[in-house]
Amino acid sequence: MSEMDQTLLYREIHQQPQVLTNILHREAGSIDRLAAELRRQAIQRVVIAARGSSDNAARYAQYLFGAVNRVLVSLATPSLFSIYKSPPLLSGSLVLGISQSGRSPDIVSVIEEAKRQGVVSAAITNDPESPLGSAADFVIDLHAHPEQSVAATKSYTGELMVVAMLSAALAGDSSMRNTLHAVPDHVGHTLASVAEGIARCAEEYRAIRASVVIGRGYNYATAFELALKLKELNYIMVEAYSGADFLHGPLAMIEPGFPVVVIAPSGAMLPSMLDLITRLQERGADIISITDNDQIVDQSRISLTMPMTVAEWISPFITVIPGQLLALQLAHSRDIDVDRPRFLQKVTETC
Amino acid sequence: MSEMDQTLLYREIHQQPQVLTNILHREAGSIDRLAAELRRQAIQRVVIAARGSSDNAARYAQYLFGAVNRVLVSLATPSLFSIYKSPPLLSGSLVLGISQSGRSPDIVSVIEEAKRQGVVSAAITNDPESPLGSAADFVIDLHAHPEQSVAATKSYTGELMVVAMLSAALAGDSSMRNTLHAVPDHVGHTLASVAEGIARCAEEYRAIRASVVIGRGYNYATAFELALKLKELNYIMVEAYSGADFLHGPLAMIEPGFPVVVIAPSGAMLPSMLDLITRLQERGADIISITDNDQIVDQSRISLTMPMTVAEWISPFITVIPGQLLALQLAHSRDIDVDRPRFLQKVTETC
Repeated sequence: MSEMDQTLLYREIHQQPQVLTNILHREAGSIDRLAAELRRQAIQRVVIAARGSSDNAARYAQYLFGAVNRVLVSLATPSLFSIYKSPPLLSGSLVLGISQSGRSPDIVSVIEEAKRQGVVSAAITNDPESPLGSAADFVIDLHAHPEQSVAATKSYTGELMVVAMLSAALAGDSSMRNTLHAVPDHVGHTLASVAEGIARCAEEYRAIRASVVIGRGYNYATAFELALKLKELNYIMVEAYSGADFLHGPLAMIEPGFPVVVIAPSGAMLPSMLDLITRLQERGADIISITDNDQIVDQSRISLTMPMTVAEWISPFITVIPGQLLALQLAHSRDIDVDRPRFLQKVTETC
Repeated sequence: MSEMDQTLLYREIHQQPQVLTNILHREAGSIDRLAAELRRQAIQRVVIAARGSSDNAARYAQYLFGAVNRVLVSLATPSLFSIYKSPPLLSGSLVLGISQSGRSPDIVSVIEEAKRQGVVSAAITNDPESPLGSAADFVIDLHAHPEQSVAATKSYTGELMVVAMLSAALAGDSSMRNTLHAVPDHVGHTLASVAEGIARCAEEYRAIRASVVIGRGYNYATAFELALKLKELNYIMVEAYSGADFLHGPLAMIEPGFPVVVIAPSGAMLPSMLDLITRLQERGADIISITDNDQIVDQSRISLTMPMTVAEWISPFITVIPGQLLALQLAHSRDIDVDRPRFLQKVTETC
C-alpha cells in the first residue's frame, strides 16, 4: 500500500473532489454564457468530437442532454473531417470538442470545420491555450492541472461535471445545480469508504485475463470508462457493453467463473440490470457489482458498495470511483507501474 | 468440411449474392420514393435505431451518408425512448429503424416516437409485417427470407446494400448505382476465392482465446461486425476498434503473439492502417489482414487477400466475407455447433 500511495495515479484519483469543486466555482459563469448563446440561437442539437476517456464523457452527455434537455447528441466521426475531407452539415448544432490536452489534430479539425460552416463551437479542455481551446468560440477549463498520469481520472470526472453544469444551465434548473454542489463531497466520501472491498477484489482477481463491464443509460459511459482503465493499466481484455446490446450476441462468450463488472445504481435502469444479473448468474458468471441496492449486493460475488444513494443522473460521478481504484489496485497487485503503462503517452495525437 | 457445408450458417453466407441481387432489383423503387420524400422535406439528418449486426450496418450509414451526402447521422440511444421516457427532439431528421426481425421493442419505440413528433420514419427489415415494419412510414424489405442462423450474415450485407442504395438515390448518382450492381458478383467471387487462406488461419488459431479487430472509416462497421461474429460463434473475447481509438489506451494490452485482425482495403484509410500495422508489429502482435494491398500482405502473418480492388465505399461488402467465413471455420475447428450458439435466440427482444 505504501508504494501505491506514492503514484501519480493514486494522487490524481484523490484530487477529484478538489477538481470538481474548482469547476463548480470557477466555470459557472462561462457555462452560463455558453448556455445563453445556445438559447439565443435556439440550438437543439449537439455534435461531440472526443477520443478515449473524453469520448466516454461524451456518452454521458448523450444521455443527460437527451433526458434532461431533449437535445439530440451525435458523436462525431472525426475521420469524416480529417481523412475523408467530407464533413457532414452541422447547421443548427453546437459542435463540442472534449480533450484533456486539446492537442489531438482530428478533434481540432472538427472544431475548425464548425467555424468554416459558421456554427457555434465549444471546447472542454484542461489547456485553454491548446489548439482546441484556441479554435473554439467558447472554452471551459477543467482546472485539473496538471494531469500527469497516462490514465485519465480527474479530467474524466471534470468533463462529466462540465457536461452536467451545461445541462443544468440549459434547463435553468436550480435544483440540478444544488444537486451538483453535493457531488464533490459524495466523491470524497466514496474514495474514503470503498478501499476494503476493492483490496479484496484485487486480491481475488489478481490472475484475471479478461472481463466485461456492463452499464446502461447514464452509466453506459461508466462501463466504457472502467473498461478503458482496466485495460490500459492491467493489459487485459475488457469490453464494455450496454445491458441490452450484451444480450444480442456477446452473452454467448460467458463461461462459468467469468468475471463481469455490473454497474447498477438505483434508478430507472435498475430493473433491467437486475434481470441481466439473473441471466448472467444462470450461466455461472462471477458478478462484481457497483451498486447501492441490497438485492444486487446479495446476488454478487463481490460488491463494491456505494456509500450513499444518489439521483441516477449524478451516479456516474460515484460509480466510476470504485472502478478507478480497482484498476489501480489490481495493477499494483500485478506489479505494473501504473504511472508508465507500456506503449502509451499522455498525449495521443491521431489524425 | 462436409459437415460445415450442411450448416444453415454456411448456406446463408453463400446466399448473400442472391439476396443482394434481390434488393437491387426489387427495392430500387421503394428506396427512390423514400429519397424523394427526404428531398421534398429537405432533410439533412438521420437518426438510426438498431442493435447487434444491424447497429453495425448503422455505422456504415454514418460514414457513407456523411461522406457522400453530407448528412449527419446520430445513432439513437433507444433507452432514452423506452426506459427514461424522455426522447430527444427529432425534427428535421429521418428516423430509421434497422432490424432483421423487426421485433425488438426498444427499436420499435424509437419509430413510434418519430410518429408522435410528426417526423418521417423508415424501417429496413426482413419482415415488413413486423411491428417495426408496421410502425414506419416507409419500409424497405431485405428479401433475405428466411434467416434462420442466430448469427446474422445475409441480413447484414443486405442492410449495407439498402443503405448504399439510399445514399446513391439521395445523391442522384448513377455511377454509384452502377458500382452497386457489380457488388453481388464481387461477393460471389470473394466467397469462391478465399477458402484456402481461411482454412489455414482457422487451423493456426484453433486455440485462440482473445483477439482485436481494427478498421476505420467505412470499415469501422466491418470491424464491429467481425468482432461480433467471432464472439457469438466462438465464445472468445473479441473487441472492435477504430485505428485511432486503439492508440488512445487499448494499445497497452498487446502481448507478443496476440492476434489482431486488421481490415485495410485500398482507399483513404490505407496510410493510417499501414502506420498502425507497423506499430502493432513493433509490439509483436500477429497481424491477420483482410486487404488487397501488397505491402500489407507482406507485413501480415496471415493475409485473407481480397480477390479484387474496389472503391473504398463498397469495400465493406467484400471485407466482411473472409471474416464471416473465418468465424464459421474457426467454430467448426473448435467443434462448436454454429447453428445453435449457446444462450442465444434468433430474435432478441430488449426494452
